[in-house]
Amino acid sequence: MSTPGQVIRCKAAVAWEAGKPLVIEEVDVAPPQKDEVRLKILYTSLCHTDLYFWEAKGQTPLFPRIFGHEAGGIVESVGEGVTDLQPGDHVLPVFTGECQQCRHCKSPESNMCDLLRINTDRGVMISDGQSRFSKDGKPIYHFVGTSTFSEFTVCHSGCVSKIDPQAPLDKVCVLSCGISTGLGATLNVAKPTKGSTVAIFGLGAVGLAAAEGARIAGASRIIGIDLNAARFDNAKKFGVTEFVNPKDHDKPVHEVIAAMTDGGVDRSVECTGNVNAMISAFECVHDGWGVAVLVGVPNKDDTFKTHPMNLLNERTLKGTFFGNYKPKSDLPSVVAKYMNKLEYFAGTRAGEVHYPPSSIFRDQQGI
Amino acid sequence: MSTPGQVIRCKAAVAWEAGKPLVIEEVDVAPPQKDEVRLKILYTSLCHTDLYFWEAKGQTPLFPRIFGHEAGGIVESVGEGVTDLQPGDHVLPVFTGECQQCRHCKSPESNMCDLLRINTDRGVMISDGQSRFSKDGKPIYHFVGTSTFSEFTVCHSGCVSKIDPQAPLDKVCVLSCGISTGLGATLNVAKPTKGSTVAIFGLGAVGLAAAEGARIAGASRIIGIDLNAARFDNAKKFGVTEFVNPKDHDKPVHEVIAAMTDGGVDRSVECTGNVNAMISAFECVHDGWGVAVLVGVPNKDDTFKTHPMNLLNERTLKGTFFGNYKPKSDLPSVVAKYMNKLEYFAGTRAGEVHYPPSSIFRDQQGI
Repeated sequence: MSTPGQVIRCKAAVAWEAGKPLVIEEVDVAPPQKDEVRLKILYTSLCHTDLYFWEAKGQTPLFPRIFGHEAGGIVESVGEGVTDLQPGDHVLPVFTGECQQCRHCKSPESNMCDLLRINTDRGVMISDGQSRFSKDGKPIYHFVGTSTFSEFTVCHSGCVSKIDPQAPLDKVCVLSCGISTGLGATLNVAKPTKGSTVAIFGLGAVGLAAAEGARIAGASRIIGIDLNAARFDNAKKFGVTEFVNPKDHDKPVHEVIAAMTDGGVDRSVECTGNVNAMISAFECVHDGWGVAVLVGVPNKDDTFKTHPMNLLNERTLKGTFFGNYKPKSDLPSVVAKYMNKLEYFAGTRAGEVHYPPSSIFRDQQGI
Repeated sequence: MSTPGQVIRCKAAVAWEAGKPLVIEEVDVAPPQKDEVRLKILYTSLCHTDLYFWEAKGQTPLFPRIFGHEAGGIVESVGEGVTDLQPGDHVLPVFTGECQQCRHCKSPESNMCDLLRINTDRGVMISDGQSRFSKDGKPIYHFVGTSTFSEFTVCHSGCVSKIDPQAPLDKVCVLSCGISTGLGATLNVAKPTKGSTVAIFGLGAVGLAAAEGARIAGASRIIGIDLNAARFDNAKKFGVTEFVNPKDHDKPVHEVIAAMTDGGVDRSVECTGNVNAMISAFECVHDGWGVAVLVGVPNKDDTFKTHPMNLLNERTLKGTFFGNYKPKSDLPSVVAKYMNKLEYFAGTRAGEVHYPPSSIFRDQQGI
C-alpha cells in the first residue's frame, strides 16, 4: 500500500497521564504538511528529559503525549516545499531545529534558531497549531517536535538531519541529544588545546561525552568530578584520568582542583545542572586563560554567583545548548566522527590504537 | 655629571599622609639593581587609581609614598642583567609587568604575569624588598612599581615598555593605563565584528577608549550608557552613536537595550566597576553569540549574580585586566596605532576621513 498522502495507523507508546506507564496504542499519523516530513522510526532511545516531562512535576502537564527524541529513522514522505529531504533518506530527528533563515541560523556562532528552538511547552506543529497524532479522532500531543516513541512521526523538516545511509541507525540514534551536547561542549565551546587540563563535572552520559571530547582534543589530564565514586571506573574508558569526589574533601572542590593543577585547570565543563557545581566549575579554571562551559540545565530559581574579580582575572564563562551544533548542518559530521573511528579501528592493529571506538554508544531501547 | 651608578637627587611629589596634599620634595633615587632600570620621567598624568590609593580608604595605608603610573620617560641607566633596554631608550613604565618566563607570559591569552602582576600593597622593589627612594635617609614607598610623580624613578625592567622614539611622550604617556585598558577590552577581548552593535557602560576615560575600540573595529552602533547625560556630547567624538541614561527608564537598562537592538547587542564592555552595571552589561548581550567584557574594578564585597539560563543561552562573560595587553610585548603596537592614525589623517582629505585622530589623548599633567 502506498502511504504518502495517507493517514498511517501504527503503534506508539502513549503517555496518557503524568507519571503513569506508557501504553502501546494504535494511533493515526496524518500526512506531513508544508515544510514537514513523516518519518518511519527504526530505533529510539530514552533520555532523562523524556522522564522529566513525563513526570511533569516542574511544568504544565500536556497529555496525552507521545514522548521520545533520540532516534534514527527513514523519511517516508515529505510535505510541500521540502526540497532537501526525500523518501528513503536516513535521518536523525532532533529536538531543536535549524530554519536556515533567521539571525541565529545565519550566525556561525549560534544554533538557537528563532523558529525551531526547543519548545517543551508546545505539543502541536508550528504551521497550523494542530497535532498530527490522533486516536479515535482525538489529538495526542507531540513532544519537542520529535515524538519518536511511535513507529511513524511527523517533524518540521528543519528538525531532521540527513545522515550517511551507511551509519547504523541503532547506534547513531543516540547522537541527536546528550552525546552531541557533551561532545560539542568540549570540542566546539571549551576547545581545550593539546596537552591541556580539563575538569568534567558530572560523569553521566553528557559528562562522559564531554570527557571523550577532551580526549579527542588531546587533553593530557581529564579530571572527573562526581559524588558517586562508582562512576570513575567507567569514566576511564572515556578518557578521564583522575577522579575527585567532593565528599572526600573538607575544602571546596575548586580549591582541591586548583591545588592539583598549579592554580586551576585550563578548561572545565559542567554537566550536572547543579548551580553549586556550576560555580565550582567556573572558579576552578586558571586565571589568565581558563574557560568554563556550562551545559547542565539549572532549576528555575537558581542563581549563579561569583565575585567579579574571578572574571576580571581573565577567566571566561560560557554556556552551550546542544554543544553548539546546528542540527541540520553539523550533526552529519558527528555521525561521520563515529563512522571514521570505526574505520580507523578496523584498519589498525591493536597496539597502534590511540582512540579506540568510543564506548559512548550505549545500548538503546527499540520500541 | 655622570649619573649612572650614582644616587640622583631630584624633585618628586611626595604623599606624606593619606588624603593630604602632595608636597614637592627633594628626594634621593638610588641606582637600579639587578633587572631594574632608572628612568627620567618627562611627562606623567593622573589616574583615578592614584587618587584611590592616596585616599587609602579601602586598603592598608602605605606612606610616605610616591604615586603616579601613567608616564613617559627615557632610560637613564640600567642594572645588571638588563639587555633589552639601554640608556636613551624612550619608554612607558607600566603598573603591571611581563617577566617573559612564567606560564602567563608564555600563554598567548594571558597578561597576568606571576612575578610582576600589579601589586598595590607592595611599596618596595621585588629583588631586595627595599625602596629606591629616600629623603634624609628615610625610605619613601613606591607605588605599583612605577612612582612616576618623580623626575627619576626605578622600575623592574619587566615593567618598562620600549616604544618608538618618534612618539610624542607628552601624548603617549596616557597609553600605559586606562586608555589601553578600554581599547584592549574591545579590540582584544570583546572583538566586535564589522557592522556589529556594541554597548559601553560608563563614559569615563576607560569607557571612551572602549568606544574608540568599537569604532576602530567598525561597529555600526555604539550605545553609551551613563548616569550623567552631559557625557554624551563628548562621547560622540569617540564613536558613541546612541545614549541611554538608566534614570530615564522605568524598566531595567538591559531590557531597554534589548528593545533597541532586536534582542540585545552583539558585544558589551563594562567600564564602571558597579556590580549592577556589570550584571546589566552581561544581560544586555544577545543570546546565541553575545559577549560581555568586564573591565571596571568592583568593590571587595560585591557579588555578580545572574540566572544560569542567561549563560546556557550561549552568552559569554569575560573579564580583562589592562585590556589583555602584555606590557612589554604589546604596548609598542598601541603607540604605533596612535602614530599611524596621525599619518593616516595627515595624508587624507577631510571628506575621506573615516577614523579621525583619536581624541582619547587628553591633556596630561607635567610635573
